[in-house]
Amino acid sequence: MVKEIIEAVRQQGDTALRDYTERFDGVRLESLRATPEEIEEAYKEISDSLLAVIREAIENIRLFHSKQKRDSWFMTNPDGTVLGQKVTPLDSAGVYVPGGTAAYPSSVLMNVIPAQTAGVERIAMVSPPSKEGKLPAGVLVAANELGVTEIYKVGGAQAVAALAYGTETIPPVDKIVGPGNIYVATAKREVFGDVDIDMIAGPSEIAVVADETARANEAAADMLSQAEHDPLSKSVLITTSAAFAEKVKHEVERQLEDLPRKEIAEASIRQNAQFLVAASKEEAVKMVNDMAPEHLELLVDNPFEWLGSIKHAGAIFLGRYSSEPVGDYFAGPNHVLPTSGTARFSSPLNVDDFTKKSSVIYYSREAFEQHAGKIAEFARYEGLEAHARAIEERLKEE
Amino acid sequence: MVKEIIEAVRQQGDTALRDYTERFDGVRLESLRATPEEIEEAYKEISDSLLAVIREAIENIRLFHSKQKRDSWFMTNPDGTVLGQKVTPLDSAGVYVPGGTAAYPSSVLMNVIPAQTAGVERIAMVSPPSKEGKLPAGVLVAANELGVTEIYKVGGAQAVAALAYGTETIPPVDKIVGPGNIYVATAKREVFGDVDIDMIAGPSEIAVVADETARANEAAADMLSQAEHDPLSKSVLITTSAAFAEKVKHEVERQLEDLPRKEIAEASIRQNAQFLVAASKEEAVKMVNDMAPEHLELLVDNPFEWLGSIKHAGAIFLGRYSSEPVGDYFAGPNHVLPTSGTARFSSPLNVDDFTKKSSVIYYSREAFEQHAGKIAEFARYEGLEAHARAIEERLKEE
Repeated sequence: MVKEIIEAVRQQGDTALRDYTERFDGVRLESLRATPEEIEEAYKEISDSLLAVIREAIENIRLFHSKQKRDSWFMTNPDGTVLGQKVTPLDSAGVYVPGGTAAYPSSVLMNVIPAQTAGVERIAMVSPPSKEGKLPAGVLVAANELGVTEIYKVGGAQAVAALAYGTETIPPVDKIVGPGNIYVATAKREVFGDVDIDMIAGPSEIAVVADETARANEAAADMLSQAEHDPLSKSVLITTSAAFAEKVKHEVERQLEDLPRKEIAEASIRQNAQFLVAASKEEAVKMVNDMAPEHLELLVDNPFEWLGSIKHAGAIFLGRYSSEPVGDYFAGPNHVLPTSGTARFSSPLNVDDFTKKSSVIYYSREAFEQHAGKIAEFARYEGLEAHARAIEERLKEE
Repeated sequence: MVKEIIEAVRQQGDTALRDYTERFDGVRLESLRATPEEIEEAYKEISDSLLAVIREAIENIRLFHSKQKRDSWFMTNPDGTVLGQKVTPLDSAGVYVPGGTAAYPSSVLMNVIPAQTAGVERIAMVSPPSKEGKLPAGVLVAANELGVTEIYKVGGAQAVAALAYGTETIPPVDKIVGPGNIYVATAKREVFGDVDIDMIAGPSEIAVVADETARANEAAADMLSQAEHDPLSKSVLITTSAAFAEKVKHEVERQLEDLPRKEIAEASIRQNAQFLVAASKEEAVKMVNDMAPEHLELLVDNPFEWLGSIKHAGAIFLGRYSSEPVGDYFAGPNHVLPTSGTARFSSPLNVDDFTKKSSVIYYSREAFEQHAGKIAEFARYEGLEAHARAIEERLKEE
């Protein structure tokens, strides 16, 4: 199915995009690109206060990500050698913003800002349109606030294919980021290699570590904020107090009652929540590191003292006032985080994801002549005679 | 086939490793791990001069990679906010060293050193044994010089499966790196997600950019040093002089004649070599950036002046004395480089590949109370009520 869609987009370009959008999103679009008029209209639809929050969040996210920027560097030797690492932004990136029933302007901010901070010149955003052929106001406003001008009203596997291979309207990009449903994820896996992709996100997880200083109602609320994402979301309480665990269980039940997304949150809690009692701080830390959670909250006294023991977590929220939504929306660090235990080896989305390095090697004649014989010997040991000869060609008299 | 091997290793552990090693490598091994005696024996088999080169290369590679290390950092705000990024090495890494007819100690150095520099505590090396049940002396010596003690005599998809899922003898690792044949590459793709992997390397490529100051014999020798790797290797000359291109063609033919790996190199040259004439420096740069070559040589006057225009290349070798084998074996930068145009978005293997970041977020009560309302509003706009309530639980009077 996904392969077929990708193939159709490669062959028929915009025509395929229009056909699939009609079929899956229920609207036939003449222009695939969002217009200045649509953006203007979007500003009228959102409140002044939301606009102000978006603008403040942008500032915070930009500031944090600016600290991730890396310079090119070089090292030199008196023999004339210059070695270095050149850091270059990707030429272009595509950002997938999920649509459907909800609007995710925070997803726009978290995916676009690291790319812009890295220096990526061209950023193309795609998102599935509503039946009316529109994108959510918050998404358009967020994109416009960031200066993103290439906004396409196309979603699903067809959008990923367009970003990877290009169509008449959408030029191809070098890397595709952003979350999406199973079709989007599958399409990203398919095109990987031809273009780069970010991680394939799994269901959201949180580990809430709480000692006797924590409040059960707050721990429960944070577990539910994960649970409302998806029935597959996983919320784990880790506490040194069995009594506290019982209190949190009770609070979860109480707060579940009147949640708008109760059905989802309840399914997640019933299937995936865990209330673990650790015998000691050390055991609690081990549980965290074994889980390598996407989100980790430390609702403990002196949370900074725990930092040195935590090896694996996507984002670490310290103390009572660092509830996870603080990081989802506002504080500055990225909310695109490694899921399903991949924090063992993966990082939050960051500026490095939108740059790449080139090694730089300069040998002077002096340096070369000093080492040529050794290099040729090493090459010959590996059976690569032409490598040795490439060195020795330079030693010939002219 | 590969899936079947992986499944067998997951189920039968060491037994499967012994069976496949017997079947594919022609030897039944009692002990899968290389012994101190084998390592001692290896030192007797290699020359003092090769040992000296390996040691000097180790120093150079360590020095270069040490510059890639990154510190954890944090930023603070007078309102009590602390935000940061914690950098942590992976717990463990597995290094695949290809075997067969040749020995590749340089592969040991280039894959192990960045992991060690990152601070990875456990490094397991795997490599297929000879029919005599041994690993090449150079490989054992290189590993021992680096202090690698976990050396397993197993190769192919079965080795990748063992590293990913563990057996009685081989504990699992978090990331698998290193080149291998099609079975190894396929197995790495299969296990990706359960563990991390490095890139899947394609055939080797070089672009040699030469102006009228270059020597045809040297350009030709460098093209052949790529060509001898594989019939699929690609060597491209880009020059502003048609006459020079002819000279290089002639030199390639001449030098091909007595190469030990002539058959491979000749196939590569016939099928994949290109001799391109650019109308200007600008056009030459464009050709390079369009190709995004794994290796780029700038055999030109003032090669440093070109650096600012080169956007996409794995490693850039500047000037006559920076022949590509200088980087393969000795200079210090990594020789594991992005192939097949992936230098558009990928980097040489480096210390970052063996670390990951965790975001750190601490909000004070003051900071929280100032921003709580905004964060809740943003969450509600996205339809995530439990997120908003997680914030508001903290605002309740106690």
